[in-house]
Amino acid sequence: MKQGTLFTKTRREAPKDEVAKNAQLLIRGGFIHKEMAGVYSYLPLGLRVFKKIEEIIREEMNGIGGQEISLTTLQDKSVWEKTGRWSEEVIDVWFKTKLANGSELGLATTHEEPLTALMREYISSWRDMPRYVYQFQTKFRNELRAKSGIMRAREFVMKDLYSFDRSEGEFKEFYERCAQAYMRVFERVGLGGMTFRTFASGGSFSKFSDEFQTVCEAGEDTIYLSRKKGIALNKEVYNDGVLKDLGLSKGELEEVKAIEVGNIFPLGTRFSEAFGLTYKDEKGKEHPVIMGCYGIGLGRLMGTVAEALSDSKGLVWPRSIAPFDAHLVELGGENEEVRKEAAELYKDLTEAGAEVLWDDRDARAGEKFADSDLIGIPVRIVISSKSLAEGKFECVERATGKTEHKTAGELIEELRPRT
Amino acid sequence: MKQGTLFTKTRREAPKDEVAKNAQLLIRGGFIHKEMAGVYSYLPLGLRVFKKIEEIIREEMNGIGGQEISLTTLQDKSVWEKTGRWSEEVIDVWFKTKLANGSELGLATTHEEPLTALMREYISSWRDMPRYVYQFQTKFRNELRAKSGIMRAREFVMKDLYSFDRSEGEFKEFYERCAQAYMRVFERVGLGGMTFRTFASGGSFSKFSDEFQTVCEAGEDTIYLSRKKGIALNKEVYNDGVLKDLGLSKGELEEVKAIEVGNIFPLGTRFSEAFGLTYKDEKGKEHPVIMGCYGIGLGRLMGTVAEALSDSKGLVWPRSIAPFDAHLVELGGENEEVRKEAAELYKDLTEAGAEVLWDDRDARAGEKFADSDLIGIPVRIVISSKSLAEGKFECVERATGKTEHKTAGELIEELRPRT
Repeated sequence: MKQGTLFTKTRREAPKDEVAKNAQLLIRGGFIHKEMAGVYSYLPLGLRVFKKIEEIIREEMNGIGGQEISLTTLQDKSVWEKTGRWSEEVIDVWFKTKLANGSELGLATTHEEPLTALMREYISSWRDMPRYVYQFQTKFRNELRAKSGIMRAREFVMKDLYSFDRSEGEFKEFYERCAQAYMRVFERVGLGGMTFRTFASGGSFSKFSDEFQTVCEAGEDTIYLSRKKGIALNKEVYNDGVLKDLGLSKGELEEVKAIEVGNIFPLGTRFSEAFGLTYKDEKGKEHPVIMGCYGIGLGRLMGTVAEALSDSKGLVWPRSIAPFDAHLVELGGENEEVRKEAAELYKDLTEAGAEVLWDDRDARAGEKFADSDLIGIPVRIVISSKSLAEGKFECVERATGKTEHKTAGELIEELRPRT
Repeated sequence: MKQGTLFTKTRREAPKDEVAKNAQLLIRGGFIHKEMAGVYSYLPLGLRVFKKIEEIIREEMNGIGGQEISLTTLQDKSVWEKTGRWSEEVIDVWFKTKLANGSELGLATTHEEPLTALMREYISSWRDMPRYVYQFQTKFRNELRAKSGIMRAREFVMKDLYSFDRSEGEFKEFYERCAQAYMRVFERVGLGGMTFRTFASGGSFSKFSDEFQTVCEAGEDTIYLSRKKGIALNKEVYNDGVLKDLGLSKGELEEVKAIEVGNIFPLGTRFSEAFGLTYKDEKGKEHPVIMGCYGIGLGRLMGTVAEALSDSKGLVWPRSIAPFDAHLVELGGENEEVRKEAAELYKDLTEAGAEVLWDDRDARAGEKFADSDLIGIPVRIVISSKSLAEGKFECVERATGKTEHKTAGELIEELRPRT
């Protein structure tokens, strides 16, 4: 895409009321737009990153047998009354609204209730399981404060998967497979090595749940971490009893701030019992279905990458989720030869399947480089009268600043999508 | 995908309160689930169709220079007050809700206001245009009645594009390009030949707008159509004055029911003036930006295909948006040879890139054929001891019932995606 055509521009300053680094950088780079506190639109660059994260998660969820659906935002009061969660004393972040006829509706904060109700139409026998169902769907949470940018929004897209199993054993096997798929997701979006599976409170449903925590100063959570053992505990379960259960001593754990980028949660029969979601086993005996839920907030994950991988100059995207594979920066495009060379390289790279942002704007080199650093595309390729003379292009790796000179052929080979 | 794994099943009956044919068929086939009147979830088969429609529209919108974004559901009252459209006397289908602090919010019915406000940050000079911005985003409309299935829902996804131009001429040129792109969309989803560009009321913004109407008995609209001239008028503008303007006589127009599958609309400077979205021309003189909007409801379009192309046995999908390219129906899978042959053909077809639903269920032939007809995948391939003996598979075209016998090689060639 030509940068001169892209409707967004970089900004020197984020809005004054925006205190989160992720949102400051993403707004300045033109990735997102703040509609109000905790409510952000995604602009072309931001939506490209978002869609790549979505596709990585989709691949991993399909890989463990997930079937994709899309539930609704508008929620029927009677469905939520079955579990008592319609009450604002139980879920304190409801947004509620009304139909024209006066009946109350809710905006979904999560989807256990409607999905459990729905599955009653499709599960009745042991033959109908296991089933793993997921969606990418907007959640609405009426948070009192929203100061963490896209990491804790009032309106955000979550991938939520729900498991329906016949036994604790079948459930646990899937739970572990999903935990591994989650680790692959975090690895693939660039947070590997800094993201740890973390023991957390199971709430009312079970003893523990598992969180996935990315070590980062901007995190709202405190975890106790043994990097050596690859084990971590959320502060909420950091007590002598749990330490003893897990065979850990305080001395080997480091206290760090972290961002919860995912969590997985045994639900037991809490929802299946409330909705009468049961199945008959091979002998005709009826049992409630064993459920689990598995969430990743996409904005949260994108915000975490923005927080954790950025530097003083701006964003730093891993290639897997970068808005473009390469940033072609043309200097002195008023020189016809330079413009021609840029057009040719752009054509060759895009025809090879690479996604390229071509800075064809009439602007100073300093401004172009600063914008390029802020936007954070993994490789910057500079085309100028100098590169013309050399027959090689200066290539700067955004993450490291490493500079190399490469021919067009080398670049095409490097940026061609791997199959 | 193996049908025995798919979590949905076909149903003999739709819910009693569901009167629309599109929703009846889609619910019975397991494509959608009714949460409440006008609110439908999309299940795996339905979401596959939906995503293919989305991708066709995306390609066409990108092809005319559209840049994709995603705005928000939650809407700031103060933004809508600028045009007076916060009032329920002006927009009578608002859903409204409240932040925890008591401030009122709306759920977006459309997005002219927030996008015009946003574009002020990026448009100030003639150099910043033209710009074409679109999204696939959920709209909420608090309709008093919702009886048309997914054709008129209270919560639905719309593709809405907005144009920002410098002059009437530039605007009109784009408007025509978009009208042509719309006709390609309708052609590609299988509604070509029965969908007509139709003169409609321009409302408060201009003399005419253009609707795209698909001729169908289930339609809520009445249009007057000359198939010969390829011209149509909505009843709302069917009067002597307009007929004279267009050089048409009543005698050459046929009155038919039709479904509005898209509309495009000049907005003039209504929104740009309300928000102060102006630009400076080459001489430094300030002008308001000329806008237009262009909508296609994705559920509406999918529902129209369901209404218009189905028959007494069920749904009939064109290959371009079918949930799968082929339905592999195995009969007598308890015969190991049959099962092996089915597995092999399934593998060969999917490896060639075809999307195949393999009915591996232990069920009677009659039930499998009825389900296959209801689901409406374009080609049914039957594998049985008979096909084993012949070395050819019986292939039935869903739309016509035409039966042919084909070898595995011929099927692979036919179902391989065209590049």
